[in-house]
Amino acid sequence: MTNFLEQIERLVGVKNVLVGAGDRGERPWNTHQPFLGKALVRPENTQQVSDLLKLCNAQGQSVVPFGGLTNLVRACVTTPSDIALSFENMKAIEDVNATELTMTVEAGATLQELQQAAESAGLFFPVDIGSKDSCEAGGIVSTNAGGTKVIRYGMTREAVLGLEAVLADGTIVSSMNRYIKNNSGFDLKHLFIGSEGVLGVITKVVFKLDVKPLSHNVALLAVDSYSQVLEVLAESRRHLGSMLCGFEVMWDSFYCKATQPEGRHKSPFDRQHAIYIIIEAMGTQVESDTTQFLSLLEILMENELVVDGVMANSDRERDEIWAIRGEVEWLVRDAQNFDVSLRSGDVETYIRDIETAIHTDLPSALVATFGHLGDNNLHIAVLAGGDGDSDRKAVEAHIYNSLLPYQGAISAEHGIGLEKKPFLAITRSASEIALMRALKQTVDPNNILNPGKVI
Amino acid sequence: MTNFLEQIERLVGVKNVLVGAGDRGERPWNTHQPFLGKALVRPENTQQVSDLLKLCNAQGQSVVPFGGLTNLVRACVTTPSDIALSFENMKAIEDVNATELTMTVEAGATLQELQQAAESAGLFFPVDIGSKDSCEAGGIVSTNAGGTKVIRYGMTREAVLGLEAVLADGTIVSSMNRYIKNNSGFDLKHLFIGSEGVLGVITKVVFKLDVKPLSHNVALLAVDSYSQVLEVLAESRRHLGSMLCGFEVMWDSFYCKATQPEGRHKSPFDRQHAIYIIIEAMGTQVESDTTQFLSLLEILMENELVVDGVMANSDRERDEIWAIRGEVEWLVRDAQNFDVSLRSGDVETYIRDIETAIHTDLPSALVATFGHLGDNNLHIAVLAGGDGDSDRKAVEAHIYNSLLPYQGAISAEHGIGLEKKPFLAITRSASEIALMRALKQTVDPNNILNPGKVI
Repeated sequence: MTNFLEQIERLVGVKNVLVGAGDRGERPWNTHQPFLGKALVRPENTQQVSDLLKLCNAQGQSVVPFGGLTNLVRACVTTPSDIALSFENMKAIEDVNATELTMTVEAGATLQELQQAAESAGLFFPVDIGSKDSCEAGGIVSTNAGGTKVIRYGMTREAVLGLEAVLADGTIVSSMNRYIKNNSGFDLKHLFIGSEGVLGVITKVVFKLDVKPLSHNVALLAVDSYSQVLEVLAESRRHLGSMLCGFEVMWDSFYCKATQPEGRHKSPFDRQHAIYIIIEAMGTQVESDTTQFLSLLEILMENELVVDGVMANSDRERDEIWAIRGEVEWLVRDAQNFDVSLRSGDVETYIRDIETAIHTDLPSALVATFGHLGDNNLHIAVLAGGDGDSDRKAVEAHIYNSLLPYQGAISAEHGIGLEKKPFLAITRSASEIALMRALKQTVDPNNILNPGKVI
Repeated sequence: MTNFLEQIERLVGVKNVLVGAGDRGERPWNTHQPFLGKALVRPENTQQVSDLLKLCNAQGQSVVPFGGLTNLVRACVTTPSDIALSFENMKAIEDVNATELTMTVEAGATLQELQQAAESAGLFFPVDIGSKDSCEAGGIVSTNAGGTKVIRYGMTREAVLGLEAVLADGTIVSSMNRYIKNNSGFDLKHLFIGSEGVLGVITKVVFKLDVKPLSHNVALLAVDSYSQVLEVLAESRRHLGSMLCGFEVMWDSFYCKATQPEGRHKSPFDRQHAIYIIIEAMGTQVESDTTQFLSLLEILMENELVVDGVMANSDRERDEIWAIRGEVEWLVRDAQNFDVSLRSGDVETYIRDIETAIHTDLPSALVATFGHLGDNNLHIAVLAGGDGDSDRKAVEAHIYNSLLPYQGAISAEHGIGLEKKPFLAITRSASEIALMRALKQTVDPNNILNPGKVI
């Protein structure tokens, strides 16, 4: 084994092979995943990634690609037999092209760096998730990250024009398309987007950028019932069209954790409500966009679709509204977290189903719900009370099995990793899983890339 | 062989196996592709498609899936040893859901039927191409059709939430996702989108719908130079943001064919210009959107970014402007047609390169250029004068080889088919082509699905 690590050192340099790197996995969002691998390797360029994988493939050495380790599904868990691949030496923003609205980056650049690079060129990179200071280009592409602006801009997949990936055998697949339209043969990038490092290691990405929105309006609304949520969503879509870029729903079970006396934020409302909605709109015309946004709020009030509401009148007020939704530390730290997809019309009955099922087993469990309802994405955080493994398993079973009548999806944006792998068949058919396995076998026959994850 | 057709007849019914179907391939856009196959089979449901492919796979029988046969790259060409699969008995629009903004359809529904079904529900299906009365759901998905609204809505791929496909061995892969967000394992639909029937036969699709735009503004502008085109594009993006849904550029070489004395349309301008631009914007607020559109035109005029311009003031005037761009009969009938992708900043020099190269060989050739410049998509129609095969080959070589210095793509939206297959390596690397072949081998080891196309 020492000999093997020496071979790796010869490929990437001694300083880029960390052994006994016990602290490397300890990043803010990753408290549950201590680093157990035999070494953490930090290649400096794509050729080194290729050389390394070629060597590992020949020796049947498993490799776990790391991004910012912010995933919530144990997709980067290591065992003592793994080596991990870190992209901290591959962080270059190689090119931002303001005419073509493209940005070419190495896998290790953080999302925050991507946003800033776009901003510096007067442009806009629309992917935005809570862990942006840690998560990396390769990671958000490998996991097809979602976030709060999907209703307008789509998932990370929609922002990827091209990429470069290295297959298990070291083959560099350069598919660095820079064009909106390119139907020249199969679009191979989609093999690597969202497959969590199982089919290849992403080393570079060409992202599509957008023009920078100049208007930015946010309101926090309160409603009595879920049917009002659906009406507010429909009216917001009709009224704002493509300016609508965020539609977040928080049930009081979530909202009160952030705003009750012991919470860190102050609710602008003088009483509790059943459900709260954040509507966000972005456009290019400050005055007329704001007028349009205000007129939406008027329509919602006049038609009694909302009970109460406040509109942010400053950057600070906008941040305060979003901070309530962003108050997720407690759930990342303490709760079991789920992110499922459902028809928006099924969400209310599904929540009732899981509350009933969980409370039958665990009467004191807290079931907090929130999500991006315009994208079919419901998040659920459960504090089961006890911390026994059997309680956790019971909660999991209720959440996932309750999806079956609705043909729901077990993961909207978090992915599968190890965490949801036992439940994959709830969402995906046997023929789909067989096809996933066939693809894996084709591009990684020795099963060295992130083995055991997803399928 | 008779025996084999009888077996097929037992699977799909005698009336659904047409032998000697010489006229079946003769559809409006498909004059160059007479039907040569041994039979045209018209299954009535997915199970029949599965049974049929299972039989064909066992016997090594090649199968060419037909859509509306409107492709321009000989992707549906048949030989006497092929059977063809037509979806004319699978045209159901199974479901349009106005709450979820989804539409579930069988492969044989035409694009026009999709648009109308969405419209009837007060919604909008944004894919729009010239052949909409013939092209079919399965075809636009298999070819990842583009069109004129890609700058806002993306390619057909972006409108596909889920699909059902049948593999060569008859396996039905149901991947009928209906959610905007679904990261539950690999997103298999992308194997089948844009791969021209080579990896599987699409039988059903779940499309994403949009809210119906209420405002619709169109202007035709004239500019002196290509640098003005880029400035107009940048200003239009800044000013209109996501309302900008069409940006079409026509060089005078194209425009004059439609508008000169012998042409069918009347130019609204009193003299010729170098380049013409159609700008289209759609939004949800009739009055303020129109004000915003007018103010863009004012800015363009005041800053002398355009020489002349007219804005459509009625549906009729809007149609008249688009009719100039839609005047493509002559080129579908007589010309060699190309659709390449380039950086917008490279388009002017590329056009100069190909004109020089073609005119060196063929001094009297007409090189007409137009395209969707906001999507990197340049169309080129060449009338070489003579109709010798060597002239055609020379033109092809000039168009494609001239892409090399710009790393251009040989197909923006038309696809590869048989027509562009010899040139695939201009755009795609050896490792990409090897990976495409590996995928084909995985899902169609006997090479029965649309054999010889794409790769």
